[in-house]
Amino acid sequence: MDAATEAVLGANAAFYAAFNDRDTASMDVIWARRVPVSCIHPRGNLLTTRGQVMASWFALLANPAQARIVAGGECVSVHGDVAIVACRELVAGTPVVATNVFVLEDGHWRLAHHHGSLVELES
Amino acid sequence: MDAATEAVLGANAAFYAAFNDRDTASMDVIWARRVPVSCIHPRGNLLTTRGQVMASWFALLANPAQARIVAGGECVSVHGDVAIVACRELVAGTPVVATNVFVLEDGHWRLAHHHGSLVELES
Repeated sequence: MDAATEAVLGANAAFYAAFNDRDTASMDVIWARRVPVSCIHPRGNLLTTRGQVMASWFALLANPAQARIVAGGECVSVHGDVAIVACRELVAGTPVVATNVFVLEDGHWRLAHHHGSLVELES
Repeated sequence: MDAATEAVLGANAAFYAAFNDRDTASMDVIWARRVPVSCIHPRGNLLTTRGQVMASWFALLANPAQARIVAGGECVSVHGDVAIVACRELVAGTPVVATNVFVLEDGHWRLAHHHGSLVELES
């Protein structure tokens, strides 16, 4: 595994760790600041401002009923300063699939876009 | 609008035009060949090879019952040779939201990743 892929996988893991630790400060750091960010939660519509995106995550982190996410099966493709991670999530036993797009900002991979959706069909 | 954004929007429109025209040759051209491609259809799991991805689209295009996609509301962010398009789709009246990640190959924006999911919650 090359260094960039390893770093992207580290950033992806940090994103899920921030979620599971309900760590709002880390979640805020993980999201990009110099490029537009956007997010689509399972069953949700498109969120297109950093304010909307972070508010959605902080609400999830503040919800005591929110289950942890077990993430795995990452497929990573790095294209210069942008990386696409497609991975699987299990949320309280519900299968979810996610797209996480990272961009390199000041040497750190930051999340620019997240898209999560429920897996309901065999494929 | 800058030239890159305009070109990316053109590629995004060509993707939906190929779908609506049931044009398998154009759909094949639109998808990248030099980088890994991946795709997540609404309710579906992650498809991770070009063969799997193209087979899934050809099956949709060959299905006489498949509705057209009306796409709009595109949000584009271009990062060098990679571009993220988040957009809305209407498929037989069903709201869908999509992530389309394009990469520049030989001067053409090609699709490297598509993720579509149903919108079922207000946001």
